[in-house]
Amino acid sequence: MLKGIIMNNENYQPGLSIDCVIFGFHDNQLKILLIKTPYEDKWSLPDGFIPINEDIDTAAVTVLNERTGIEGIFLRQFATFGRVKRNDQHFGNAVLEHFKIPKEVGKWFTQRFVTIGYYALVDFLKAIPQKENSREIIEWIDHKEVPELILDHREILDKALNTLRIELNLMPIGYNLLPEKFTMPELQKLYETILDKKLDRRNFLRKINNIGILNKLDEKKSNVAHKAPNLYTFDKDKYEEVLKNGLNQGW
Amino acid sequence: MLKGIIMNNENYQPGLSIDCVIFGFHDNQLKILLIKTPYEDKWSLPDGFIPINEDIDTAAVTVLNERTGIEGIFLRQFATFGRVKRNDQHFGNAVLEHFKIPKEVGKWFTQRFVTIGYYALVDFLKAIPQKENSREIIEWIDHKEVPELILDHREILDKALNTLRIELNLMPIGYNLLPEKFTMPELQKLYETILDKKLDRRNFLRKINNIGILNKLDEKKSNVAHKAPNLYTFDKDKYEEVLKNGLNQGW
Repeated sequence: MLKGIIMNNENYQPGLSIDCVIFGFHDNQLKILLIKTPYEDKWSLPDGFIPINEDIDTAAVTVLNERTGIEGIFLRQFATFGRVKRNDQHFGNAVLEHFKIPKEVGKWFTQRFVTIGYYALVDFLKAIPQKENSREIIEWIDHKEVPELILDHREILDKALNTLRIELNLMPIGYNLLPEKFTMPELQKLYETILDKKLDRRNFLRKINNIGILNKLDEKKSNVAHKAPNLYTFDKDKYEEVLKNGLNQGW
Repeated sequence: MLKGIIMNNENYQPGLSIDCVIFGFHDNQLKILLIKTPYEDKWSLPDGFIPINEDIDTAAVTVLNERTGIEGIFLRQFATFGRVKRNDQHFGNAVLEHFKIPKEVGKWFTQRFVTIGYYALVDFLKAIPQKENSREIIEWIDHKEVPELILDHREILDKALNTLRIELNLMPIGYNLLPEKFTMPELQKLYETILDKKLDRRNFLRKINNIGILNKLDEKKSNVAHKAPNLYTFDKDKYEEVLKNGLNQGW
């Protein structure tokens, strides 16, 4: 696809791209969807360009859908990156050489790109990495084992993770990431995994109950010998309401 | 300046602009810096283009400095706007006609621009609106009396105000906006003005003290007959620390 875009650049918004930081959670693991680049021994965030007849948000949704095979997922624009030196001629030339594109045709691609960052959080067992071609390598990689990334993708990834952590204070998460019925320790583990730190059990219980998005069920987790923990579900209406209005009533 | 850019567009990042929402606070008033456009009976946010040899953040700082005459002000990127229909040919043509620029030269200007939004919060008595030319009208306008704006500038303004309100929960404000020594009611009024709602006095006092950025002085406000209120200053070191690490320790 990239080759086609470079050859037909008049159909795309000039000097602008999209990078998606797709976080995957399951069973206390936080991973990132990454693609091995064919033109350098580095990895890349899933990226895309913006057709001139498409809204930027739509173009971002397209990248997410094409790369995970799932739709209707929460996707959030978090920052735009535009340092002059973020992509250099060296990088552009490597791509042109790889695709055997003449420099005259791909000149625009060796100049500065500004990129708009989006992030999403999905269950990585439900989001199967989609290849663009059979030789492509695209994988869920643990967020603590991220290899060397191209350009400023490491900075984009770090900023996305930082934003996600801050937004845990502003909105509820967990829906679509936990089983329909879950225990309080499972929910706490989700927060701990994203924040990468231990939380106090009592504080967590108090805070999460204060938000008012949980239904405590009249059943307990089965197959647990001793002190079976209570099961909960999300109250979807209240969850949506808090998602819309923000969790922190603040001042 | 705009005319020069349209005529010499190869020196600027194509299809990309910057819009600055500059909030001004003083004495319980919240205003926005706006410019009357010469080619339409509407107003505009201060905007600019991005020289190809400048980082996007630097270009935003330039707009802020040129329009307010002050430097070293906190400026924050908050969102990028890129709907296909955000600027239409009608708008582009009106600008070209106003500046008497041939359509062939200014064709790029009639196509979609993606714009990166930044916001700042300054004391409007210290930030004197700077004109680009003697006929230009640039003014501080009360945020409740904003006239009709061009393009999607109203949406950009609303989003900036919403972001500022959310970020009151994440970072301290007030430095550079209040006198060096201020009273608790003055600080509370700053928050109430930005949030556009009354706050409970005791709750505010408790929350603001919890942040730990205030020094209570051994003096009281003079010229007040009855029950003179205490004076406070910001503890600059702690203020900077909280600004860096975020106010909400959260989970």
